[in-house]
Amino acid sequence: MTADRSAALTELIAALGPALSLDPTELDAARADKSGQRAADAPLAIVHARTADDVVAALRVATAHRLPVVPRGAGTGLAGGAMAGRDRLVVSTARMTRILEIDAVNQLAVVEPGVIVAELDAAAREQGLFYAPDPASRAWASIGGTIATGAGGLMCVKYGVTREAVLALDVVLADGTRERFGHRTAKGVTGLDLTALMVGSEGTLGVIVGATVRLTPVPRGETATIAAMLPSVVAAAAASSAIMASGLRPAALELIDPLSLAAIHRHLRLEAPAAGGTHLLVQCDGEQSGDDAERALAIIRAHGGDGRLTTDPADAERLLTVRRSFHPAMEATGHVLIEDVAVPRSRLAEMFAAIERISADHGVPIPTVAHAGDGNLHPNFVYTGDTVPEPVWRAAHAVFRAALALGGTLTGEHGVGVLKKRHLVEELGESQLALQRRIKAAFDPLGIMNPDAVL
Amino acid sequence: MTADRSAALTELIAALGPALSLDPTELDAARADKSGQRAADAPLAIVHARTADDVVAALRVATAHRLPVVPRGAGTGLAGGAMAGRDRLVVSTARMTRILEIDAVNQLAVVEPGVIVAELDAAAREQGLFYAPDPASRAWASIGGTIATGAGGLMCVKYGVTREAVLALDVVLADGTRERFGHRTAKGVTGLDLTALMVGSEGTLGVIVGATVRLTPVPRGETATIAAMLPSVVAAAAASSAIMASGLRPAALELIDPLSLAAIHRHLRLEAPAAGGTHLLVQCDGEQSGDDAERALAIIRAHGGDGRLTTDPADAERLLTVRRSFHPAMEATGHVLIEDVAVPRSRLAEMFAAIERISADHGVPIPTVAHAGDGNLHPNFVYTGDTVPEPVWRAAHAVFRAALALGGTLTGEHGVGVLKKRHLVEELGESQLALQRRIKAAFDPLGIMNPDAVL
Ligand SMILES: Cc1cc2nc3c(=O)[nH]c(=O)nc-3n(C[C@H](O)[C@H](O)[C@H](O)COP(=O)(O)OP(=O)(O)OC[C@H]3O[C@@H](n4cnc5c(N)ncnc54)[C@H](O)[C@@H]3O)c2cc1C
Ligand SMILES: Cc1cc2nc3c(=O)[nH]c(=O)nc-3n(C[C@H](O)[C@H](O)[C@H](O)COP(=O)(O)OP(=O)(O)OC[C@H]3O[C@@H](n4cnc5c(N)ncnc54)[C@H](O)[C@@H]3O)c2cc1C
Repeated sequence: MTADRSAALTELIAALGPALSLDPTELDAARADKSGQRAADAPLAIVHARTADDVVAALRVATAHRLPVVPRGAGTGLAGGAMAGRDRLVVSTARMTRILEIDAVNQLAVVEPGVIVAELDAAAREQGLFYAPDPASRAWASIGGTIATGAGGLMCVKYGVTREAVLALDVVLADGTRERFGHRTAKGVTGLDLTALMVGSEGTLGVIVGATVRLTPVPRGETATIAAMLPSVVAAAAASSAIMASGLRPAALELIDPLSLAAIHRHLRLEAPAAGGTHLLVQCDGEQSGDDAERALAIIRAHGGDGRLTTDPADAERLLTVRRSFHPAMEATGHVLIEDVAVPRSRLAEMFAAIERISADHGVPIPTVAHAGDGNLHPNFVYTGDTVPEPVWRAAHAVFRAALALGGTLTGEHGVGVLKKRHLVEELGESQLALQRRIKAAFDPLGIMNPDAVL
Repeated sequence: MTADRSAALTELIAALGPALSLDPTELDAARADKSGQRAADAPLAIVHARTADDVVAALRVATAHRLPVVPRGAGTGLAGGAMAGRDRLVVSTARMTRILEIDAVNQLAVVEPGVIVAELDAAAREQGLFYAPDPASRAWASIGGTIATGAGGLMCVKYGVTREAVLALDVVLADGTRERFGHRTAKGVTGLDLTALMVGSEGTLGVIVGATVRLTPVPRGETATIAAMLPSVVAAAAASSAIMASGLRPAALELIDPLSLAAIHRHLRLEAPAAGGTHLLVQCDGEQSGDDAERALAIIRAHGGDGRLTTDPADAERLLTVRRSFHPAMEATGHVLIEDVAVPRSRLAEMFAAIERISADHGVPIPTVAHAGDGNLHPNFVYTGDTVPEPVWRAAHAVFRAALALGGTLTGEHGVGVLKKRHLVEELGESQLALQRRIKAAFDPLGIMNPDAVL
């Protein structure tokens, strides 16, 4: 360690006391998130911030010593955004876990960033409200991390993405300045919308130390769930697109392609599905849910499929097991690289066809699930060994380019992080990338905030 | 005119031909928007851009000669953002009026910025869709202008504000660079969200030359409209807050205070309303609209009010006349300065009480209407003569500070423009204002974009 690094450490210890950790196990854990990748070396130290003041103190020292800072929530990210390597200072907000306020009248909550998504949702439901953004990782992911990634989820097809749920943010900038962006009000256009700019900024602009988020009234009526099988992925993609184009707004519309479905069935020790068989999961909520689900089922039938509709919650849970078992089924067979492209809904079938071609060309299987209602696909690459094999990277790159060619994007909800940084310029172009870097510099002139990620 | 200004004009004429106007009547008109204010002098010239290339050409010359540029849409703004004074080059996108695409399957439209909001909405409705942002100026305001202001409207209480309707933007930066921000997809988190940053940027970051916007399926079922009277503004504010807190999501929830109502009645030559009488307008849409409206009416009755409910469209139009006549009623009596504060919904009654106090203290009447479902109030100041009298400014300032004290904001939907610039620092603070200026500089290093507005 250089003299300056140890001087920095001494200052951090003085400023943060027990909130600073040098524990080797913890440092080692901070090398990774859930992307399956890890940094080559461990970071310098971890700040387990208890308060916003801890974050301020840490960033002041980081600025004084030009220490690179990696903000970290629950570490469930899939893009490597929270992976911290040599000489990095990890600033974790995972222990700032207080729900400060649930305001049922204004339908909002004020929380610290370490609150777990599912816990906020549960607290809101006690008052007839819910927190709509529901990434599949909601039982572990933190509010701060999901805001920093701009997370999506199953229900955003109806209720919108994280950006639409964030009203105001408390942020600590690289130099330790505290700022409050946004409003507690439903509307507000005073100055540039820095709240929206923070959402999805992946720790590159500042550390989120507090959030005011919108809650949504729990819809009246029961939820209707359909689990359907279609004869091919093309038929299922066409059915999804038709359901959305019909004006229906399901609360979830998920597609599981044949390869994924076969893997799930193996994992759950079920009978193998029919060849080409593709699974569609549709949920409708609200007082019209029964009628809406019947209409969705009719569209599925018109596309050669059929399914079972239930309004019984326990039965619905069983139908959801298939979708829920996707990640475990993948992880049971090896390391997993999860891509996250999005295309306009109408191009979903074409995107599946492209993935099939790429899989054949590169000789790698690509089991894929999709938040079909949003045109957001997760092509999975399963590999063995510690690093992603080159053919997998090449196939992943081809998938991304195919999405771009269909009018799509590199990442629908997981973020760019470290893993997808290499593709960024292809989507944005050199001049926009330069503009994004200038904006980052407006927040962080020394470039110490998450310098390995995104920009 | 300086030699440099006339050299710039010569270049503009060469580059833009008939798209450049020096017509004195047009230049004079560009001194004003609908705020009731006008710049002291006329601008240098107006570019009536026909294409994005015209905008590029204009901005290149502007950059070369450091000419201040004022982007302009339909000129219906209420904050003076499009007011252009001495030596300013107006870049108007009002003549870029093509709807390039309505994509019914992906529920989006691609438009040029000069398209009028109501025209896009009408074109969408032919395909069973609609464009949700509906400022009261929708018959005149342009898509580009409403995006640049982050406009709201009556229905955003249910369908969200302009920000939530914008998927992607084509923008020309100060130096003539063209950029495309955002995606055609429903989701996307590639890099910083510059689309959201452009929404509400009021011409300070670049010129919007194209937009991809979300369309919404027209809800099935009929619309139920309630016109109700409550005994006091406090009762009406409490009823609005209770309707929202009940979990109902009306498509519009508008409040007209006693002073405004009396003025409207005079204007429409109706009998004077009861003293203290406050008007609430509620609209519910969707298949549950009848039931929802009955529940809203029950809440109104529980607050001492009563009203009439109709599902007949012609009858509903009549009920809407009162709300629609508000602006004309104000304008019939003098010049109008319209404020635009927002508070958390639960503080609406307190805000009305504060306005009453301020009105008494400053000796100016302040008729106020509110998008009550969003906690967004429009206190109006009617005056005679060409400039806003100082007591009116002082009262307006007091209104803004009262909103801030209630956890509110300076502007819910009209923007900061030139008129509210003086208040900006009170809400944002010096350091955030400096940050916003640095971000502006990342887009516009010479500071030529709308330099009189906002920042
Ligand atoms: C099984 C599984 C399922 C998943 N399903 C989904 C899904 O359906 N949809 C989806 O969108 N994602 C999903 N994810 C990805 C992941 O859960 C999300 O990206 C989540 O938003 C990360 O939250 P986190 O708290 O774990 O953040 P981390 O992983 O700790 O960090 C993520 C990024 O945010 C930054 N960050 C974290 N906290 C802060 C802060 N306080 N201030 C500033 N920056 C910060 C980090 O630097 C990093 O760049 C899934 C992950 C797993 C493992
Ligand atoms: C009777 C009446 C009712 C109204 N009701 C509402 C309402 O309910 N809700 C509401 O929000 N507003 C309302 N307004 C205000 C106004 O209509 C909105 O602010 C509208 O968004 C302005 O659109 P415009 O095209 O007229 O823009 P302009 O007035 O021309 O410009 C507004 C701002 O946007 C910038 N701008 C314009 N075009 C571009 C472009 N292409 N690129 C970059 N910047 C650009 C300008 O520089 C300026 O700062 C009302 C106005 C009137 C007169």
